[in-house]
Order: sequence, then structure tokens, then C-alpha cells
Amino acid sequence: MQVTRDQRHKPRITASYRIETPLDIEQAAVAMAGEQSSGTFLRLEGETDELRERHAARVESVVRLETVATPSLSGALPGKHYACAAITLSWPLENIGTSLPNLLATILGNLTELRELSGIRLTDITLPNDFINAFAGPQFSINGTRRLTGVANGPLIGTIIKPSVGLSPEATADLVKQLVEAGIDFIKDDELIADPPYSPLAKRVPAVMRVIEEHAQHTGRKPMYAFNITGDIDEMRQRHDLVRDHGGTCVMASVNWIGMASLVGLRRHSELPIHGHRNGWGMFYRHPQIGMSYRAYQVLLRLAGADHLHVNGLGSKFAESNGSVIDSASACLTPLQEGSSRDDRAMPVFSSAQTIHQAHATFAALQSTDLIYTCGGGIMGHPHGAAAGCRSIHAAWQAATRGVALEDYAKEEPDLAVALRAFRRPFSG
Amino acid sequence: MQVTRDQRHKPRITASYRIETPLDIEQAAVAMAGEQSSGTFLRLEGETDELRERHAARVESVVRLETVATPSLSGALPGKHYACAAITLSWPLENIGTSLPNLLATILGNLTELRELSGIRLTDITLPNDFINAFAGPQFSINGTRRLTGVANGPLIGTIIKPSVGLSPEATADLVKQLVEAGIDFIKDDELIADPPYSPLAKRVPAVMRVIEEHAQHTGRKPMYAFNITGDIDEMRQRHDLVRDHGGTCVMASVNWIGMASLVGLRRHSELPIHGHRNGWGMFYRHPQIGMSYRAYQVLLRLAGADHLHVNGLGSKFAESNGSVIDSASACLTPLQEGSSRDDRAMPVFSSAQTIHQAHATFAALQSTDLIYTCGGGIMGHPHGAAAGCRSIHAAWQAATRGVALEDYAKEEPDLAVALRAFRRPFSG
Repeated sequence: MQVTRDQRHKPRITASYRIETPLDIEQAAVAMAGEQSSGTFLRLEGETDELRERHAARVESVVRLETVATPSLSGALPGKHYACAAITLSWPLENIGTSLPNLLATILGNLTELRELSGIRLTDITLPNDFINAFAGPQFSINGTRRLTGVANGPLIGTIIKPSVGLSPEATADLVKQLVEAGIDFIKDDELIADPPYSPLAKRVPAVMRVIEEHAQHTGRKPMYAFNITGDIDEMRQRHDLVRDHGGTCVMASVNWIGMASLVGLRRHSELPIHGHRNGWGMFYRHPQIGMSYRAYQVLLRLAGADHLHVNGLGSKFAESNGSVIDSASACLTPLQEGSSRDDRAMPVFSSAQTIHQAHATFAALQSTDLIYTCGGGIMGHPHGAAAGCRSIHAAWQAATRGVALEDYAKEEPDLAVALRAFRRPFSG
Repeated sequence: MQVTRDQRHKPRITASYRIETPLDIEQAAVAMAGEQSSGTFLRLEGETDELRERHAARVESVVRLETVATPSLSGALPGKHYACAAITLSWPLENIGTSLPNLLATILGNLTELRELSGIRLTDITLPNDFINAFAGPQFSINGTRRLTGVANGPLIGTIIKPSVGLSPEATADLVKQLVEAGIDFIKDDELIADPPYSPLAKRVPAVMRVIEEHAQHTGRKPMYAFNITGDIDEMRQRHDLVRDHGGTCVMASVNWIGMASLVGLRRHSELPIHGHRNGWGMFYRHPQIGMSYRAYQVLLRLAGADHLHVNGLGSKFAESNGSVIDSASACLTPLQEGSSRDDRAMPVFSSAQTIHQAHATFAALQSTDLIYTCGGGIMGHPHGAAAGCRSIHAAWQAATRGVALEDYAKEEPDLAVALRAFRRPFSG
């Protein structure tokens, strides 16, 4: 079918995939495009040539990869072998409009269940400016977060309240007092605590903010505390107001579980940076033939309004590879539109078993300090206490950015020297 | 550690999993419980015995299954072999409170990324009544849906507007006119259309409802149309009002993409049944070692407020097995609380390549007609038109419930006889 000039110049959404199929790969790509635009098992009366030309999804490219003997996913059509391919499809923006949940219904949706596919993973998305500009995006991004915390340069050094579960509001506030006096820039609730009966936000927020406001009055520095307000949309908006009214400067949500529709809804309401926690993300990346890449997903989370996005960390206790961690963080730091004046980057949040030892490798790979670097034991476990722990992490990052080896920098920085003896290198990278 | 009587009698949430691990399976279960309650890699000052007793997650059972030579998921710790197990963990309700997103952060969350696991799949959930009763649940359920449609017995016979993409509001209304005159009980938008520029709900809703209201005035029967209102939370609430104000009786949303926080938020606002579409669900079930069962997930969707829930269909074009389809539908029809007067069942929606041929097997397996049975080609493709198509599907279900073979029943039902010649049996079941 010939595509008219008119259709060629309309904005399109493109999505790239890694697929595995018992079919011919071109045939599989065509099936995917059909299923997600005008396809069904009968050609229908209303499905005119004009409609097809205007609305059909298009196969933009197909690149053959390896062939495997057994299917990666259950339920696929039987085949002699299963061919892998990298493919790109595109849709007219007009099919979807500017909506994140409906974008996902189109570019992923039923594709995940097609018997034509024994592997289906979304690897990348490119959105037209008309789509991008329909969303407010991150409200604070990196510069806003730096302004609120007074950290002009270097990573924000952060930590997570532990134990994750069970601390009373008063005990939390006591711990926050230690941490802010130790010089921390950023503190977050664990994702396991939001508004439980033993520590309701109505008590935790005032208790914590009293400590932080006092500290700010004495020192002129106000560390950022990300209160986990995860809940239903109305609860989150109320909790946001509670945090704001007590002088809080950040709210956190479990983005996978609240969902796109509520992240957009929270952003519309919010006057504070939104800290996006992605617990559950393993469901999307642990098998290479199902799910989606964070490179694709973080685009949607940023458009929806996340200012900070978790990316795990190098040498962490989690299953993600270091390469994937850096790819995710780099993606978060890449503007969505070239030449736009709007800052739509998200600040990547490194966490899980981070210590002085990951600063060099993280900086070397990312070539940026626009990040939040959270340590638990890496700060609290310092033999000379949390303040020495904070100083040692700062020193490690200074060494990294100045290109000085940790061991050399430690000669001038006693807290770093102690940390070097106390913390084992987690990996060889 | 001894568990006091006080702790033993507090309500607990239990979650069951299928896991695969390079570790000893008991050790893996303990790691999971620790990670999702009070664990970190250092024993912390604030982590008192009292706090642990009150808040620790508990390993309730561990059942060893097969051992495999290679890990199912990437990033797990290396092992000589990988042991599979069915395990059950429990948490005090107090850890979480009554929140669906926070429940998921606890029972799934970071577990999906643990290097201790090369497989992690949530298979079932049991929630205490205090949790269940905190949610409004389905507002209409089966009885409310039957009341609105005037279908007292048998399945609701439904269809989906096709082509999925590209029809104008007027063309959609024309198709709806044919369908309601053909005797359809239920029509839904495709999940690929919500509020796109070529068919905005502001035009589609009035155009469709004009046809349906006219039909209702003439016949006394008002077929249900599920308008796809998927969008951000504020858009969905506005669109719900639009549907309601034009006399519409159902709203549909892509539950995986809007998320739990918005489904709860929509339910709080809604005066209409909520039709839950689960496109994207393949991400959760296509690999047996990652994701979750619908048996578990549908509990959460019902608590959040879904009245109808998609379950695919027997012999469909999708990858799900027939056994899984029936297990999902049975789960939707099982009350969440024994002896409760509240009807918290969801009406399962069968779809994808359904024809006269699946009625017998579906009824035999489910022993219920409390379902929506949607056919596309199975109705529109009837050689004598859509009205004959509708009658043939009704006849097939009557035959199924009366225990009469299709071929025998067709002797008295000419539309069924024609359908029998027109539609191939999709499977042997």
C-alpha cells in the first residue's frame, strides 16, 4: 500500500523490541503491527483502505539475531526453531493521543500474550515532541533538587532509615537527628514503610520535620527527607500536603505499584520533588525475553513527573548487572528533547550496598555527579560513626572526580582511611 | 525467638511463592523474610528483639520441588544447582496497614531483584478480614451487572468494537446500532482506543449512547457499553462523569497501566461498573519463574474495585493455557470472605477467538454462567449476519447448560446449525 505524503509527515511513536518467534521474523513483526492497530482474524467491513493507511502500525526495521532451539516463554506456537530479532515498529501519534497508560496498551499490551512470540521485550521508545510536550515532566529535576538541598556540586550523599520496618515516629526522628548532624544531604523512608499504624505519616512527618527544621535554622542547610507517601491517589495528595505543610521538601512513591495514572495525578498536584522508587522492577528485567528495559520505562516515568529515579548501584546486592545500572542512569540524565530549554532529566538514585568503593567506578562510567548516592551500612557502619561515614563518602567522591586513587586520597582524609580498612571492596570493577 | 501469645493472635498477611534458588531453600526463604521486614547487611542499633518479634516476616512453610541445572533468571548468585520450592511467608498486617500498593511493595517489591533467587513468582495471597474490609470492593459485581443489562440468566453475550483503531464516533455508533439490534448484551471499546483525536470520548460517548438509549426506549433492554476511559486519574474521573451523564452504564480501564492507586481512586468516585482490562498481563505470566499468578493478582484488583475482569478464553489466540484461564475465572468467582454478605466477586470476561465452540468446555470447567462471553468474528462472521450470530451463541450456551451436544441442539436452532458449518472447532478440549 502506498503511503501518501500527508501520512508520512504526521508525528509517529516508535518502539523497539527484542523478540523471539517460531515464525519467520518479518511475519512476526507484521503480526505485531496488525494486532496493535487494526488487526483481527477477519477483515472487517469498516476496515477501509483509507483507515488502514491512516492508522496502521508500520514495521520500520527487522534485524535478525541468533536462533535458539527451545522457546524462552510458554504458550508460543510450536516451531522447529525460534528466531530472535531486533525490530522497530511505529504508530501514528493520532492512534493514541497523549496518554501514558494508553501508550503502554498500544506498544506493549496484548503483544505480551501473542502466541506468535516466544520472547517479547520492549527495548526503547522514541516519542514525538507533541507527545513529550503534553506532559509537565519533572518539576524539580537536578537543579531544583540541588537548590532545595543547598548541594551545588557533587552527588547528594544520602541514606535510608533502617530498620526498614518497626521504628516509631519518635525513634525515626531520633535517627534523623543523628543523620543530619552527621552531615547527610538526603534521607529517605524505606519502601516498606509508608503510613502503617505503628508510624502514621500524621505523626512521622511532624516528628521528622521538627528535627530537620531545627537543624536548618542552626546551620542554614536543610537536608531533604523523602517521605514515602505511597497509597491510593487521594491518600497521596493528602499526604503530599501534610509533608509540604510541615516544611518537607520531597515525597516518595513506589511507582510500579501506584501506576502511571497516579504518578501523573500526583505530579499535577505536587509542589515538591517526586522520588520514584521502582521496587518490583525485577519483574520487568530478570528474564531477557520478557518485560522492558529501564531505558524505555524511565522515559515514561519522567514524563509522568518523577524527579528522582532509582537505578540500583554498582556491585549491589541485587541481580542487575553493572552495565545495566549505568545504562539506566545515563538514560535518566539524557534530555528527552534536543535543544529544549526544559530540564526533563531525572536524578538517578544509586542504592543497595553502596560504600566508598563504588564512587570511582560510578563516576568513571557516568561522567557525572548529578546523582543521589545512598549508603546504609556504608555510612552508619563507619567505625567512627555516621559523621565520619558521611565525610568518608564525600571524600571518596572528591577523589573520584579529581582522578585520585582512594588509597592516595586517604592519606589526607583520615575518615576515608578508616573506611578503607573497614569496608571490603564489593567487586573488581 | 519465642513468639508471645499477643503476637500470635494479630492478623497476618500470607503470600505464597514458587522460588528457585542456588542456596539452601530454607536459607533463601529466611533471606526473603528478612529483606522484606527488618533486614539489612548489618544488625542495627534500633533493631531490638521487641521490634523483631513484633514486625519480622515469618517463614510459614517450605516445600521442596525439583532441582534444575541452570538458573531461570539472570543475575542470581552462582550455584552448583538451583532448587525449586513452594514457600509461604507471612507478615503482621500492622507492618503495612491497609494499602494495596504498599502490600505489593512488601510481598513482591525487592524480592524480584534478590540475587538469592533465580526464580520468584507470587502464586497466592491470603488477606485478613481487616484488610479486606478496608476496601469497598466491586460496586456492582455480578448481580449489579445483570440488573443493569436485564440479563437474569446465562452469560452476557458481548462483543468488541472492531476495527480496534480508526473508526470515527459516527461509524462506531452505526456499528453499535447493528449490534444492539442484533440482540447483543454487552459491547466494549477495544483497549487500543480510549480518547484519541480521531474519536474523542466527548463525541463517542454521546454518539453511542444516543443509539443505546433509543434502543432501550423501544425495547426496554439497555445493552451495556464499556467505554474505555483509561487515562490519568483526573481524566478518568472526568470521563466517568461524561459516560454517566449520557446514560452510560460501564467504564473500562487498562488496569495494569493505570495502576492500583488509580483503580482505587476511580472506584471511590465511580457510580458505574468498572470493566478491568488486563492488557500487558503477559509480562506477569509468560515465564513460570517470574511474575505472579492471576489467582493472586485478581484479589487485589477486586479489592481495588474491578467489577469485571478479563481472563482470556479457551482455545484463544493468546499464549495462556486453558487450565490457567479456568483457574483465573474460578478465582474471580470465589468470594474473598467466607460468610460475608458483601458480594465481592468479579464477573470474568472471556475473549479472544471465542465462538459457539467454547461454550460447552467453558461451562463444564467453570460450572457457572456468571460471565461475559465476548465474540468478534464469532458473531459478526456468522453467514446470516450479527443477529443470527448472537442467537447462535445464546443457543450454544443453552445447549451447554442443558447438557445437550451442540450438534443435537442445532437440529432445533437453525442459526446454530449454520454457525456449526461456518466456524471451525478451535481445539479439542
